[in-house]
Amino acid sequence: MKPGIPKGTRDFSSTEVAKRNYIFNTIKHSFENFGFQPIETPSFENSETLMGKYGEEGDRLIFKILNSGDYLKKVDENLLVDKDSQKVTSKISEKALRYDLTVPFARYVVQHQNEITFPFKRYQIQPVWRADRPQKGRFREFYQCDADVVGSTSLWQEVEFVQLYDTVFSKLGLKGTTIKINNRKILSGIAEVIGASDKLIDFTVALDKLDKIGKDGVVKEMLEKGISAEAIEKVDPLFNFSGSNQDKLASLEAMLQGSEEGLQGVADLRTVVNNVESLGLDSASLELDVTLARGLNYYTGAIYEVAAPEGVKMGSIGGGGRYDDLTGIFGLKDVSGVGISFGLDRIYLVMEELGLFEAVELPKPKVLFLNFEESESLEKVKIIKTLRSNDIKAEMYPDVATSNNQQKKQWKYAINREIEFVVTTVENGTLVVKDMVAGEQTTCSLDELINKVQ
Amino acid sequence: MKPGIPKGTRDFSSTEVAKRNYIFNTIKHSFENFGFQPIETPSFENSETLMGKYGEEGDRLIFKILNSGDYLKKVDENLLVDKDSQKVTSKISEKALRYDLTVPFARYVVQHQNEITFPFKRYQIQPVWRADRPQKGRFREFYQCDADVVGSTSLWQEVEFVQLYDTVFSKLGLKGTTIKINNRKILSGIAEVIGASDKLIDFTVALDKLDKIGKDGVVKEMLEKGISAEAIEKVDPLFNFSGSNQDKLASLEAMLQGSEEGLQGVADLRTVVNNVESLGLDSASLELDVTLARGLNYYTGAIYEVAAPEGVKMGSIGGGGRYDDLTGIFGLKDVSGVGISFGLDRIYLVMEELGLFEAVELPKPKVLFLNFEESESLEKVKIIKTLRSNDIKAEMYPDVATSNNQQKKQWKYAINREIEFVVTTVENGTLVVKDMVAGEQTTCSLDELINKVQ
Repeated sequence: MKPGIPKGTRDFSSTEVAKRNYIFNTIKHSFENFGFQPIETPSFENSETLMGKYGEEGDRLIFKILNSGDYLKKVDENLLVDKDSQKVTSKISEKALRYDLTVPFARYVVQHQNEITFPFKRYQIQPVWRADRPQKGRFREFYQCDADVVGSTSLWQEVEFVQLYDTVFSKLGLKGTTIKINNRKILSGIAEVIGASDKLIDFTVALDKLDKIGKDGVVKEMLEKGISAEAIEKVDPLFNFSGSNQDKLASLEAMLQGSEEGLQGVADLRTVVNNVESLGLDSASLELDVTLARGLNYYTGAIYEVAAPEGVKMGSIGGGGRYDDLTGIFGLKDVSGVGISFGLDRIYLVMEELGLFEAVELPKPKVLFLNFEESESLEKVKIIKTLRSNDIKAEMYPDVATSNNQQKKQWKYAINREIEFVVTTVENGTLVVKDMVAGEQTTCSLDELINKVQ
Repeated sequence: MKPGIPKGTRDFSSTEVAKRNYIFNTIKHSFENFGFQPIETPSFENSETLMGKYGEEGDRLIFKILNSGDYLKKVDENLLVDKDSQKVTSKISEKALRYDLTVPFARYVVQHQNEITFPFKRYQIQPVWRADRPQKGRFREFYQCDADVVGSTSLWQEVEFVQLYDTVFSKLGLKGTTIKINNRKILSGIAEVIGASDKLIDFTVALDKLDKIGKDGVVKEMLEKGISAEAIEKVDPLFNFSGSNQDKLASLEAMLQGSEEGLQGVADLRTVVNNVESLGLDSASLELDVTLARGLNYYTGAIYEVAAPEGVKMGSIGGGGRYDDLTGIFGLKDVSGVGISFGLDRIYLVMEELGLFEAVELPKPKVLFLNFEESESLEKVKIIKTLRSNDIKAEMYPDVATSNNQQKKQWKYAINREIEFVVTTVENGTLVVKDMVAGEQTTCSLDELINKVQ
């Protein structure tokens, strides 16, 4: 049997783990710096917690866990004979793997509402599982990194998430990202102005093609989708929607005069944009984008999406927004929330492409002691103990070499693991050290070695 | 519907996550300091990778994942009508959740053998799942923390693991642990001397009761189990098995003269004990314990177990040993391995009992800015930005208070989250700060606040 792993899953080598942890730790540090607190929830939830929360397609993609023991015993025979997989599922499976972090978070908030101090700023970095068809960049097991605040409707939170994106990407060295922002209320306003909220998605999809097919092409598509010429005329400013965020806001304000909700959206966005401008961003830029309509069915206020630096071909590397009734599904009404997430796998690929992992310290020893002479081993291991207590990663090749070939094997080990300093012999406190990068061999004391390495 | 989680699983609050991460990070740091490299494997494996590796009981306790789609379609109708749960399982489930980290590690080594440099020192800290009956301290989802070396038979590795245990527990502040050590070859030697290897477990179980029931009680139990009086006589030194490790080794050497394997075990243990003594331990003590027989069916050399400091009632908080053919099950022969693991949940309980979490920095802001006056908000948020860039966790209460009650709510928030410094007002660069621990209110500049907090 040739060993393998299920499709859509991955083994991670040491180097990959180190790079991924570098991203995780940077995100975590910024989350905590901004006052967010970690929580963790179980990998599997009761099926009733997850089912029906992600639509029909989502239900299909949830991994279900088979009940233990004689799980068929109590199942109605007719269901089995009919081979009705869907109906049988709920009889033989009562647990399912987490599909995202949002629904478990909502469940957590409701379950622990009496222990939580609101507004509750939580972050969560855990894997999720989806029985999606695996393809390039899409996996069946992957991490989500979410930060959310529940219990506050303040626009300052929406400002803070822009700062948080900027801080994390700046710390990762990922300069030049674009944080796109929109507001659901502006989209509702546009819907009002074009006369049909059911056309809103057609409208934004068409508008999004402006760069590619030009104004004429977009108008043609909108007309085909049943949006009237008169309505299109009303939102004409969107076809020349360039300039600064302030220009765009002014243009939207003029355009949405007929819609109270739309004007509220403009006011909200203006508050966020103005405050972000006053506070300044380190390396990202904020861009008002009215075509941004992700998660339209549940976002109720701000909508975010982050684009990788120009020149890197990659979908969004983050996104989020405000939702007004996250916990309602579990019986706790009127808890507004707003949150963002970071797309770990895509951030990883972008950083790899831009060579941003060079600073990451890989998990390998700094110093290797060769083991050619049994009688020297104890002294070497004593020195290693001192190096380690000075926070220097060090080890001795465990097996003593009893032949030329075995000596070569130890050198090969040092080369394969890209170890910087190799100590060949130790005698009366004098070490013979080879600097593998410079290719130089010197003799030195332990203190000198510590200085050299640090 | 009242929200809940599956039995045997846990939600972790921020404080719990912080404490757990403190343990994880301490262990990780020491693992890497000792030259171990992290790997990660998928949460679920192909069923064929896991099934049959943990005995019949293990197979039963593995969580199986239901196939997606119309999974009943191709199942033989007769199996379904018979409700033969066990046979149906392999037809409707081809993936299963990881039961431990050892088998996935063996699979990883074989699958990636051409990319790995041997000896391979890996560590892995990931959750595992078992459909065990939940009880106090036993969960269906829990973390394992393992470090193993494969591809070396050197006794220096066995020395290193003793040092590693000592280092981790010392760094955690868990002083006074006892690292118990034994060697499978000594147990085989005893079996040889008592004349029956099938009586070895009965023998060690009885011997382990020496403290409680005295020599007479133990001998009685051994006779009842069918061990001859003559055999018991031969291993008589074990009934007075006290003194230093050196005393014990001398006693074992005399006792096992008839067994070549037993004497090899004494020699191996002596090497480990002598080297550990030469190197010294920081806070743990090493104790030779011939009753240590954990995992007898697969350990072939060293056997380890760690006991919590005296006075703390807790089972072992770590264990491990050498196994000679880990990867053979996946087709790669003759790869010897030795490894240890840390029992996270028990270590957590011990540290809680001994009050060792006091040094852990909890994830909460150091400084909270109250939000009573809209006009001050922007200035406050600007100050917060500076604090955060000085690595000080800070936040503003997001919603502005428009009533006395809402002001009280903000103070309550500060108290509930145990925030140390509360800034009430900011005017022209002068901050009014309340030190919540000392109960004093002062005015100061931003620089003074930064100094105060750091």
